[in-house]
Amino acid sequence: MIIDCHGHYTTTPPGVETWRNAQKDALVADPNHVGEKGTVVVSDDEIRDSIENNQLRLQRERGADLTIFSPRASWMAHHIGNEHTSTFWSQHQNELIKRVCDLYPENFAPVCQLPQSPGVSIDGSVAELERCVTEMGFIGCNVNPDPSGGHWNGPPLFDRYWWPLWEKMIELDVPGMIHVSASCNDHFFTTGSHYLGADTTAFMQALSSGFMSDFPGLRFVIPHGGGAVPFHWGRFKGMAQDKGWDFDGLLEHIWFDTCVYHQPGIDLLLDVVPVDNILFASEMVGAVRGINPETGEYWDDTKIYIENSSLTPQQKQQVFEDNTRRVYPRLGA
Amino acid sequence: MIIDCHGHYTTTPPGVETWRNAQKDALVADPNHVGEKGTVVVSDDEIRDSIENNQLRLQRERGADLTIFSPRASWMAHHIGNEHTSTFWSQHQNELIKRVCDLYPENFAPVCQLPQSPGVSIDGSVAELERCVTEMGFIGCNVNPDPSGGHWNGPPLFDRYWWPLWEKMIELDVPGMIHVSASCNDHFFTTGSHYLGADTTAFMQALSSGFMSDFPGLRFVIPHGGGAVPFHWGRFKGMAQDKGWDFDGLLEHIWFDTCVYHQPGIDLLLDVVPVDNILFASEMVGAVRGINPETGEYWDDTKIYIENSSLTPQQKQQVFEDNTRRVYPRLGA
Repeated sequence: MIIDCHGHYTTTPPGVETWRNAQKDALVADPNHVGEKGTVVVSDDEIRDSIENNQLRLQRERGADLTIFSPRASWMAHHIGNEHTSTFWSQHQNELIKRVCDLYPENFAPVCQLPQSPGVSIDGSVAELERCVTEMGFIGCNVNPDPSGGHWNGPPLFDRYWWPLWEKMIELDVPGMIHVSASCNDHFFTTGSHYLGADTTAFMQALSSGFMSDFPGLRFVIPHGGGAVPFHWGRFKGMAQDKGWDFDGLLEHIWFDTCVYHQPGIDLLLDVVPVDNILFASEMVGAVRGINPETGEYWDDTKIYIENSSLTPQQKQQVFEDNTRRVYPRLGA
Repeated sequence: MIIDCHGHYTTTPPGVETWRNAQKDALVADPNHVGEKGTVVVSDDEIRDSIENNQLRLQRERGADLTIFSPRASWMAHHIGNEHTSTFWSQHQNELIKRVCDLYPENFAPVCQLPQSPGVSIDGSVAELERCVTEMGFIGCNVNPDPSGGHWNGPPLFDRYWWPLWEKMIELDVPGMIHVSASCNDHFFTTGSHYLGADTTAFMQALSSGFMSDFPGLRFVIPHGGGAVPFHWGRFKGMAQDKGWDFDGLLEHIWFDTCVYHQPGIDLLLDVVPVDNILFASEMVGAVRGINPETGEYWDDTKIYIENSSLTPQQKQQVFEDNTRRVYPRLGA
């Protein structure tokens, strides 16, 4: 069985954007706008169309079986509006993911976004995580290390601000994928420098602080192959050695996905990162949608790179399924 | 001949820090403090000791010939104080580099820091660059894409704010190494996530905007192997293809150094980046100072990785010397 641990609902029917645009328009008039949750008008048929023509089609064409599926990352946009903005929006987005997974229970497993918002308590995110996991069967969450959208002016991951979330994740036995959203800072391009920079930043925060060792069972998935981390494996190991940081201990808490869109990058990832710490993923339909003219294959068809790699069949089984089941134990339920 | 294009004076005699601490103390009392340039009290013997026991010793032990040498990057700290702070500090740091290069003209060639300061015109940096190149024989400069020190709240590299600097660099025929300084943002660890994130960010700014094509002859060196860029070469190429950005054209303006501290990382760099766009560098004495217990060699002894690579002798000659002479034409003078 082949499990893709990183897919987003990037192809939502138009009713979703209509709801969100109305919310954003109200915020333009009044930044403190609260409003109400209201209704996202999307039919089951629209969901079927949007999924069957995109993620499900590609899943079948490429030969994967199951995608761990969460709301569109760039649309989380926690920096927009206030806590109410994020709460209503996250609830809708998560409920939409639940609908997809109820329609295609063999093909998709749900992961939620959290109603993070700059400057507010993490308690609302803890509550939404609990609702999603206990009431709707979600198996993980996405954690945005920078809800400001590229200003990086909130508390780092090692700050006790986050403790209630880490404790709830451990209690519910769900991992968090560390994933920023859209950049509203001109310096950072959302799906390029912002995503990859955040991946590296989160890893470094965990490595330099060592905070994860205080939370046995806390598990992070670092997407996009870990940003710059595997390419600079020697730099991070060497810095840890100089500074007395516990590099190997961190690997009991952190996994890297395989969203690296060329064979040499995947080969490096598989070469330096222990195979126990790698989870198959493609993030389709996502940041790169074209075909590599040199290979004739989609850039983001990462399954091909894993298959072409020098991993043994047993190791491929680990990456494609077994590791992911360990990290997401609620997947079996 | 083996030229290391990326070395910093990280081992300055104590008189340098004494001067800087006095300047910082005055700023604590008055953030608008101007003061005067004053004198950095460092003897030639102190410089000789600091260089011969460190960079020069390692250069000889490792078999390199010449280091392109600039002030300590993490100490540029453009976010501290005001424009006067940065001006006096940069002048001293650059004059110190000049003294090193005058003492060891066969071993070191000078690159300057710029007196950047958040919120002020780039004109002071243009003037200091001109002074360093025309009066002191400098061959390049370090350009800090985020003088705020991790807040990323100034103009991106594609903003016309930077144009006078790009024009002066072209006029003087000197490249700029894109290098941030110390992070004063708790999210970013200076020599880990901040350096690597900035490398990726600068590349992405150049790729997505295409601004460098408006400046024929403008040359950037992206250090630390280009941050995350080579590891995600397929992602960047695929994004460029989707968006219509000129990926290949950018490579007429950008070079990557080899400050990647393990063999698999260097092998990837050499595999995906055209050999014409790679410059040998180690950044010693720098971020990682220990020995890799698995190899018995210094993590940052990058010459070994190049030698062990599958490059042909002609390609190694390009990386070790020829490319660098093309990028730094004043090196021949």
